[in-house]
Amino acid sequence: MWQYTPPLRDMRFVIDEVLQAPAAWPAMQGFEELDADMAAQVLEEAGRFASEILAPTNGPGDLEGCSWQDGEVTTPAGYKAAYRAFVDGGWPALACDPECGGQGLPELLNAALFEMLVGANHAWTMYPGLLHGAYEVLHQHASGWLRDTYLPKVTSGEWLSTMCLTESHAGSDLGLLRTRAVPNANGSYSITGNKIFISGGDQDMTPNIVHLVLARLPDAPPGTKGISLFLCPKWLPDGTRNAARCDSIEKKMGLKGSATSVMSFDGATGWLLGEPHRGLQAMFLMMNAARLHVAMQGMGHLEAATQNALAYAAERVQSRAPTRPDGAAKGPADPIAYHPSMRRQLWTLQARTEAARVLCYWTAQALDEQARHPDAVVRAAAGDRATLLTPVLKAFLTDLGHYGADRALGIWGGHGYIHEYGIEQLVRDSRIALIYEGTNEIQAIDLVVRKILPDGGVKFGALLDWASAQCEGGAQAQAARAGLQALREAVAALQADAAADAELPFRAADDLLFAVGEALLACAWERADAVAAQRLAAGQGDAVFYQRKRQLAQYQRDWLSGELIQRLVAVRAARAELPFIPTV
Amino acid sequence: MWQYTPPLRDMRFVIDEVLQAPAAWPAMQGFEELDADMAAQVLEEAGRFASEILAPTNGPGDLEGCSWQDGEVTTPAGYKAAYRAFVDGGWPALACDPECGGQGLPELLNAALFEMLVGANHAWTMYPGLLHGAYEVLHQHASGWLRDTYLPKVTSGEWLSTMCLTESHAGSDLGLLRTRAVPNANGSYSITGNKIFISGGDQDMTPNIVHLVLARLPDAPPGTKGISLFLCPKWLPDGTRNAARCDSIEKKMGLKGSATSVMSFDGATGWLLGEPHRGLQAMFLMMNAARLHVAMQGMGHLEAATQNALAYAAERVQSRAPTRPDGAAKGPADPIAYHPSMRRQLWTLQARTEAARVLCYWTAQALDEQARHPDAVVRAAAGDRATLLTPVLKAFLTDLGHYGADRALGIWGGHGYIHEYGIEQLVRDSRIALIYEGTNEIQAIDLVVRKILPDGGVKFGALLDWASAQCEGGAQAQAARAGLQALREAVAALQADAAADAELPFRAADDLLFAVGEALLACAWERADAVAAQRLAAGQGDAVFYQRKRQLAQYQRDWLSGELIQRLVAVRAARAELPFIPTV
Repeated sequence: MWQYTPPLRDMRFVIDEVLQAPAAWPAMQGFEELDADMAAQVLEEAGRFASEILAPTNGPGDLEGCSWQDGEVTTPAGYKAAYRAFVDGGWPALACDPECGGQGLPELLNAALFEMLVGANHAWTMYPGLLHGAYEVLHQHASGWLRDTYLPKVTSGEWLSTMCLTESHAGSDLGLLRTRAVPNANGSYSITGNKIFISGGDQDMTPNIVHLVLARLPDAPPGTKGISLFLCPKWLPDGTRNAARCDSIEKKMGLKGSATSVMSFDGATGWLLGEPHRGLQAMFLMMNAARLHVAMQGMGHLEAATQNALAYAAERVQSRAPTRPDGAAKGPADPIAYHPSMRRQLWTLQARTEAARVLCYWTAQALDEQARHPDAVVRAAAGDRATLLTPVLKAFLTDLGHYGADRALGIWGGHGYIHEYGIEQLVRDSRIALIYEGTNEIQAIDLVVRKILPDGGVKFGALLDWASAQCEGGAQAQAARAGLQALREAVAALQADAAADAELPFRAADDLLFAVGEALLACAWERADAVAAQRLAAGQGDAVFYQRKRQLAQYQRDWLSGELIQRLVAVRAARAELPFIPTV
Repeated sequence: MWQYTPPLRDMRFVIDEVLQAPAAWPAMQGFEELDADMAAQVLEEAGRFASEILAPTNGPGDLEGCSWQDGEVTTPAGYKAAYRAFVDGGWPALACDPECGGQGLPELLNAALFEMLVGANHAWTMYPGLLHGAYEVLHQHASGWLRDTYLPKVTSGEWLSTMCLTESHAGSDLGLLRTRAVPNANGSYSITGNKIFISGGDQDMTPNIVHLVLARLPDAPPGTKGISLFLCPKWLPDGTRNAARCDSIEKKMGLKGSATSVMSFDGATGWLLGEPHRGLQAMFLMMNAARLHVAMQGMGHLEAATQNALAYAAERVQSRAPTRPDGAAKGPADPIAYHPSMRRQLWTLQARTEAARVLCYWTAQALDEQARHPDAVVRAAAGDRATLLTPVLKAFLTDLGHYGADRALGIWGGHGYIHEYGIEQLVRDSRIALIYEGTNEIQAIDLVVRKILPDGGVKFGALLDWASAQCEGGAQAQAARAGLQALREAVAALQADAAADAELPFRAADDLLFAVGEALLACAWERADAVAAQRLAAGQGDAVFYQRKRQLAQYQRDWLSGELIQRLVAVRAARAELPFIPTV
């Protein structure tokens, strides 16, 4: 039945061979001692945690769900024990500063860790999912006793954290939020207001919860420039219960093991983090990390769907296929993996999964380079790349993950609709990833309107140059390079036309973002194919493994290159009139 | 919050103005007395039932679900009462033969009825959803006391019916089924075997249940040519309980109010319907009706998603839009319906919903013509059209319905993920429609391999001629006609290439089916646009209504015509190699 097998060999192919990350580590500040073997060991341990401890809680946790009584949430059976093992293993602190108790390992490995956690149990992973962002915020903005009290506990994961942003009338538009913070004489603040959609707003896994809350000071200007950030714990340092309360939890489509809370702050005590009215900037530190984290969720969904679909299709026998592999016996019925329509779906899932992993890890590597590369020029370039890639990956990967899972469900036929086969849960769990941490439509506006166009496409051009350098292979890579060129021209045309039609970039943004994703996916396959070809030519390693990579690269060229074309057609179509809806 | 408003005006636009069905009725056998007013009255009554009685049970029924105890199923609160009202209203017999107690109304009106039922509550509609097919089977194959006992009860809906086909190892491939029927001395049969995925296998809404069961006789040849059809009631005519038992019900992704049953027949008494070993032929009578019925489910999903998304987007205020309609005040935030990305999604939903309705009703009208048109040539042509359109509509409409609903969920943002807003339930409920009654992949093989290619594309060509005649309008319709021509050429090329590559039609089938759907959708808009243009020119009716139709037709041309191109590109791409998966 449903299983999660850590894709360690594929991960190492990307990390060691495609990205050649271990070769770069010795020169990077703080990674001097790290090598491929150590990284492999970390991933193997993480994989064991994900598949042996976490995955068994996934299906049962969905059926049981969270329960709420008198403000307290009970998580599904096994969640608390799994979290204890997670903290004891030191996993929350994997990529944190050793000075704060972290292990100082690369973001790249942290990304791989979270891919596996989500693949094994997305709902559970919601609880530690925000820890790293909270760590970043406290690491940068907390000082004195506040830092001493909260940073070590959040770094180690001993206390979990929340992000309290959304209010019922203020979701994508945080400028509308109303929660108020009034200063007290002792330097603390009294926070009053209601928040919704707070993941882990209450839970029974940690003895305290560190809420990070956006609220307005009395003298705050309206809109987004009047929002401040506060730390507001469930239990105060003196041991009294703070007036931060979980009023109820939502009945959701999926992630039923994750307590999505309605929170009320009723004069709750909190402390300012960072400067007054600059809470959004502080929160965005957390948000960017969170967006890449959500992209890794998509990655986890895609991998989990793909590996389970392959296993099911190999095993399920139904009807005769029109053709069979050489040597396969002709029985009354064949494995459904022989049927052309299923083969197409299975190759598509695999091709997208493996190239998506290259994109994700490229981006995580860029974060490491930005923070630790000895060359300032490389640091800046990596930072620019990560900035552009973050919205692309958040939207593109979550879309691939959810619709990949949804299409994959059909491979199970009617069984796909039944809970015990696992795939329907994945479809439900994955849907939210397209929405939270900034909807995918907002990512597209962020990419196109805020990041590509304002500098005349210069930084975006540099990203395309970098991508082009990844597929410098032979003639086979020509189409991928042409795709990048077509993208360059599409952006230039958009820029030119936007002069007379300011709304155009908004109309084109969604398709342009997906076009970028598709073009990069093609580059990822060219890069992986070049590596595989090299290994095969040199007679190194497992030939079957590398031949399959080459087949997948060819599948991408033959069957999936139309996706980019379609997106570019849609970007051009966006010049058309788009009337307002008459009845509004 | 979530509502279902019967789209009566849009339905009548299609029935009365686009199809001009009422003008054709007087010449059709059995419809001589029917007119547009009477049809409108039927639809209005049906809409009242759907929106006032059925829709309120939809959300609560999903939360409550069905329960099972000791072989007996309890349906959610309100289901039984709604069903009583449905039977009392005579709705099950709407399109049945007046000689059997039916009302003899067109399939066209029956299709509209079921669109509304599914839009209001799909799970509930599963129960009566198979009645019409069962009526067809009994009407054609039951005789004597069997007919007298069961046909009137099934026609009136007093007893509900099931289709017992699937076994755990035999889903798409019914040839593998193992349930056995042994003749008894008195002319009955003893049926033994296990069935899964039986909708309404047990329920508490009717005092008896008429199971239609596929099983093998002792002398049956293997495969699909050895399957017979039996009628096997829950309660026998002598009042004893038959050995047909519901062993459990499935935990499913959606349709939680519908009892999907695991059934065991343990020497249950049944009677043969039709000839021995020809059960599949008899069942296909039911299956074709069922496939169109499932297409109407997609239609219902699409309409429900669209109307609720429009309402929510008009009401929900969030962020400033880059542009506003003339005269709209500039506040701190705008209705999300002003935002370009939302406008695109809303127009897309509307454009697809309304043209899909034209396709559906065209097909239902073809069934009526096939049965009742005075001209034998017209009858035959209509039958051929319905035969080709059935797999197209089953696959295309269910895909539009589910993915339309899934994309629409994003319009609600985070609220879309919460049960009380309704859209997440629609996404879950709609997913199964792509699978049951023949998966969409099987529909594609049916269309391309069994229906288009065997006669050299002759009947398919006639369908395209007919579609082309629907958009004989002016220059604007040129692109839609060109789409039909491109489709014709794609099929000719496929036929030519298939000579040397017998697997090619299987690789291309999915995309070709969707290409047909897209091309017909474009024709539907041209037809509707021509009608709207005529009304506006003549100054007839509500100008705003017809102008909106014209805007939607233009939106289809500007923004959605790329869908057909993409599908045709994919059909061509299917010439590429598609290897077997190495690990299988």
